[in-house]
Amino acid sequence: MGEKWLAACDIGGTSIKMAFLTADGDIIRKWSIPTDRTDSGAHIVSHISRSFYNELDSEGLTTANVSAVGVGAPGPADPVTGTISGAVNIGWANGYPLKKLLEEELELPVFVENDANCAALGEMWRGAGNGTGDVVCVTLGTGVGGGVVSKGMIITGVNGAAGEIGHITVMPENGLLCNCGKRGCLETVASATGIVNLYKMEGKDAPDARTVFERAAEGDEAGKRVIDRCAFYLGLAIGNIANVMNPAKVVVGGGVSEAGDAILIPLERYVRQFTFPRAMDVLSIEKAKLGNDAGVIGAAYLAKVMTV
Amino acid sequence: MGEKWLAACDIGGTSIKMAFLTADGDIIRKWSIPTDRTDSGAHIVSHISRSFYNELDSEGLTTANVSAVGVGAPGPADPVTGTISGAVNIGWANGYPLKKLLEEELELPVFVENDANCAALGEMWRGAGNGTGDVVCVTLGTGVGGGVVSKGMIITGVNGAAGEIGHITVMPENGLLCNCGKRGCLETVASATGIVNLYKMEGKDAPDARTVFERAAEGDEAGKRVIDRCAFYLGLAIGNIANVMNPAKVVVGGGVSEAGDAILIPLERYVRQFTFPRAMDVLSIEKAKLGNDAGVIGAAYLAKVMTV
Repeated sequence: MGEKWLAACDIGGTSIKMAFLTADGDIIRKWSIPTDRTDSGAHIVSHISRSFYNELDSEGLTTANVSAVGVGAPGPADPVTGTISGAVNIGWANGYPLKKLLEEELELPVFVENDANCAALGEMWRGAGNGTGDVVCVTLGTGVGGGVVSKGMIITGVNGAAGEIGHITVMPENGLLCNCGKRGCLETVASATGIVNLYKMEGKDAPDARTVFERAAEGDEAGKRVIDRCAFYLGLAIGNIANVMNPAKVVVGGGVSEAGDAILIPLERYVRQFTFPRAMDVLSIEKAKLGNDAGVIGAAYLAKVMTV
Repeated sequence: MGEKWLAACDIGGTSIKMAFLTADGDIIRKWSIPTDRTDSGAHIVSHISRSFYNELDSEGLTTANVSAVGVGAPGPADPVTGTISGAVNIGWANGYPLKKLLEEELELPVFVENDANCAALGEMWRGAGNGTGDVVCVTLGTGVGGGVVSKGMIITGVNGAAGEIGHITVMPENGLLCNCGKRGCLETVASATGIVNLYKMEGKDAPDARTVFERAAEGDEAGKRVIDRCAFYLGLAIGNIANVMNPAKVVVGGGVSEAGDAILIPLERYVRQFTFPRAMDVLSIEKAKLGNDAGVIGAAYLAKVMTV
């Protein structure tokens, strides 16, 4: 084997996606293991390291063939210490020392980052952001995640809470209560759950966002208003991020983005309405390209640039 | 003379502030010259260089005693080429090659940046941001200017339009028309002019923002509502910047900030209402400290870090 590999993993609530990649971000091999949430997630680190060792063994390799490890975690990462907070869904206490524990197990440099930030780095490097280091990613899933990349590096902020795009306030008055404790967050109106919320505010009910999109496509007026309203709030948030960051691309991913033009066309119109003209001149909106691989590819990028 | 000086200037519509500073940002000498707007501002560059040469002469020094020059300009600066756009008030065409022209005159490395961004760097380095590299500055004057500093460096964006805080949309519906062509920008409701606008929306008239503050202090109900509303919009914009950037400090300057607690106390309350709790944990709001010196101090910082 010539060039050293990058190792990456993306820790989610039900599974941990793992991969080895080349220094250029090509996936050599990927697999996943279940997330063991027992004992407050105390076994996760040893499961990750054992799985990396096993895969290396099966190739006749050792950690000497790996340059560094990048990890995406489901909570804000402290940019200095590499501890994780707010990863309640896998059981970790605030300030969980993920970087330190994994470095002890693997005897390799480990770099950790919030999973949404890793996905943003992945799309910037090998996905829809291709060719620019100034990218904002918005993931519209059950919640709304985000990551902001400037000059090729993630904006982490002082305590890892930068890029909380889902918690941009878009309804400053009479907003719905969000899980974070605030009201009127983007997540309450632009996630899959949020779209159902907006449909309820029209006095109607739907089991999921997909149904709202289907009904809108069939001519349901309430459904059409909900899609337009969702695009309005999303366009307001993205426009205001563009007024602050002046990125080249905004990459939209996650389940809701699968609706395609039904959401992207009105979104583009609203982004234009809310973005400073000079910033709009250079901005394009793209659909995410990497799907579930964005996290490991971005984690590998992090490991690569941090060890240069 | 031992250590080399930094040279800095801050080009405004009526005067150009100029200074020599130590490498630590102490002002050694400062002066200003009038801005000559004749012939589309064609004489400005030679006036600046002549003035620097004269001051050096009078000290018995030459450009060999200066390490670099930082310049704040009244329009977006291209982060790669150092050209200035949108400096209509001094007559320059879009893409004015300020960096190149000044380097030819001075035979020194020159670094240019938008004036609001320079002021943000100045406050970060030697003003209210003291000790942190993650600062957002908002200047509430005739308009609303801003600058975003992350890890000690200004966020410029792709074409120098980052930090356009005055053009964050805070009234997405039924907003007032802004000079930029959009509607509902922060500048239309939180600048000195904006406060008078809000007072007009209450059906009342005032010659300037100071009068509105005075009347509110005397118990005028419309004036009190206007101050609260201004703080609401400003808090919404700042909160949403904090949700994206997670800064340690937001520094508020400019004429409107001279109102002090009358605006800062309600502002703090609204910022808290609109900021993601984890980002709020580390955030403080400070009044700007450097006044009119912020621009040259920040320009000197730029010159310093770009030549390291």
